[in-house]
Amino acid sequence: MIRLAVDCFGGDHSPDANVNGALLALKQFPDLELTLTGDESLIRNALIGKEYDSSRLSVVHAPEIIGCDEVPTQAIKAKKDSSLMKAVELVRTDESVHGLVSVGSTGALVAAATLRIGRIHGIKRPAFCPLLPTMNGGIVGVCDSGANVDVSVQMLEQFAIMGSIYLQCAYGIEKPRVALLNIGTEAEKGDELRKAAYPALAALPNICFSGNMESRDLLSGNYDLIVTDGFSGNVLIKSAEGTSLELLKKLKKDLLSKPLYKLGALLLKRMFLEEKQFMDYRNYGGSVLLGCSKIVVKGHGSSNEIAVSKCIEQAYRMQENGMTVRIRDEIALIPRESSLPSKPSQKE
Amino acid sequence: MIRLAVDCFGGDHSPDANVNGALLALKQFPDLELTLTGDESLIRNALIGKEYDSSRLSVVHAPEIIGCDEVPTQAIKAKKDSSLMKAVELVRTDESVHGLVSVGSTGALVAAATLRIGRIHGIKRPAFCPLLPTMNGGIVGVCDSGANVDVSVQMLEQFAIMGSIYLQCAYGIEKPRVALLNIGTEAEKGDELRKAAYPALAALPNICFSGNMESRDLLSGNYDLIVTDGFSGNVLIKSAEGTSLELLKKLKKDLLSKPLYKLGALLLKRMFLEEKQFMDYRNYGGSVLLGCSKIVVKGHGSSNEIAVSKCIEQAYRMQENGMTVRIRDEIALIPRESSLPSKPSQKE
Repeated sequence: MIRLAVDCFGGDHSPDANVNGALLALKQFPDLELTLTGDESLIRNALIGKEYDSSRLSVVHAPEIIGCDEVPTQAIKAKKDSSLMKAVELVRTDESVHGLVSVGSTGALVAAATLRIGRIHGIKRPAFCPLLPTMNGGIVGVCDSGANVDVSVQMLEQFAIMGSIYLQCAYGIEKPRVALLNIGTEAEKGDELRKAAYPALAALPNICFSGNMESRDLLSGNYDLIVTDGFSGNVLIKSAEGTSLELLKKLKKDLLSKPLYKLGALLLKRMFLEEKQFMDYRNYGGSVLLGCSKIVVKGHGSSNEIAVSKCIEQAYRMQENGMTVRIRDEIALIPRESSLPSKPSQKE
Repeated sequence: MIRLAVDCFGGDHSPDANVNGALLALKQFPDLELTLTGDESLIRNALIGKEYDSSRLSVVHAPEIIGCDEVPTQAIKAKKDSSLMKAVELVRTDESVHGLVSVGSTGALVAAATLRIGRIHGIKRPAFCPLLPTMNGGIVGVCDSGANVDVSVQMLEQFAIMGSIYLQCAYGIEKPRVALLNIGTEAEKGDELRKAAYPALAALPNICFSGNMESRDLLSGNYDLIVTDGFSGNVLIKSAEGTSLELLKKLKKDLLSKPLYKLGALLLKRMFLEEKQFMDYRNYGGSVLLGCSKIVVKGHGSSNEIAVSKCIEQAYRMQENGMTVRIRDEIALIPRESSLPSKPSQKE
């Protein structure tokens, strides 16, 4: 039996999207048990008239909600009765609960997960690993994408290890191709951090390191995992998301600008809908916070029920394939005070 | 009279694109004089049959070419007779030559410009400022985008000043709205560099600072200039370029996948061509290397004659409006060892 907590508040469509997403996941996985946290009467209301296996669904009452505009470290202390903190405490105190899913405040989730749930032994800092669609129909993960803005070579090594095991466990990618985000593909490119990280990543025993990559190759499908600091990872992802959204908006505006174009658009309606679906991040699950001693998945605040169920599925797969234990074992293989030459070896 | 040197080799379509671009610019500006550098017989060949004012065009013979795969610092020493170095030396030694345009090796151009032409008094490091199209029909500059991967707060201040004056001189944008690239819009977001840079940029006397911006707003048209380190600037731009190229590629593939779509595509042919034009970086001029004591414009290696003429126009406008002197004067107003508190002031 796999047991997960689902924070049912804090999203744009909460609690309906969260509750319905939970029911979809229960239907999908017969050995899944979910505990929903949040205002019990509102959750019970959302459950009225729905068919589900009630023996695998429980509710923990949590009357408070942490908003996205609250200071995370203050909010997690002040709102112990929030839907998020009740989910976190359940995961922390109940050994049989394997992880949690939330679509609420990112900052509060990171703070609560780090401070209350804790890290896997040996992990310096948890890191986010969201996924984007590639143009050949696959996915690509970016680790870190915002949890850590100042990072060390050792942290980049750990991002590579955690991200690889995540893609193996959740998506069955046997040998994820790992690249280091840089401003050129040659080994000696980049700032001091990148120059030192290159040989360190190349030396990791169980990582399929493909060298440096430029951000223009993000969606090419040539890589499964992109390793970088949280600042540039955030810039990378949001630049791609923003560009695709702006382009679709422009296309839509231009399509309505002439009668002839409107006719063409009519013929292409189905295709444009598919393009929009393709680029909708909600179809690719949540951003996993890797490195915590239990599984933590953060869905987009705008998640609908499908998106929530995908997040729960991600958490399920990770637990099913023993991700946390595998990360702990792999990290234990790497010398603690990292391995790294202070000066990178120069390659031709 | 405005005098510029045009390096006629090192691009994908050299020397024809360079020579023809030069002739277009000569036609456009009656008070422009150009000196073309490169293999004289090849340049003369490209001029055969063309109409132009020969009193405003001269050629300096330079038999060598610096390739993009050469180590920049070695190449600029070893190939003194290259088209690039002849252009650089002309600019360096002839006071009446105001700047140069090249579509060759970026690294060699940066090295040669920095070491041979030199910086404006007070400037720490020259920086690149390429332009992208915004969705409301305008442009946005990003400074730095790759010349400096490790930067200080003082350098970010200088990027803001240089970029603003550039947009004023070359594009007539009176009060460029300057934003600091960050992972959130709140003043206290980001790494140590960004936290310290925010109040420093806000304190600059003649800069219209709009605060932090996220990369998803790159093309929104809300900003005229984005200030950042060369690493994240490079990630930002190439992620946007890569995403738009990949999306267009996908759209094209999908359009050919069904007969109905092909018909729709036929009706939309003109629109799709316009979208492609819109996203073609060559239509937005070159990337200016700001901070050199003379004007330096780097066009894309794949520049056609229109793109080369746009680069020359950029250089012309900058000189016409006294950019270099204005940058020098503005930099002189800023206290030399920057102004900055070691700890940023916290804003609510």
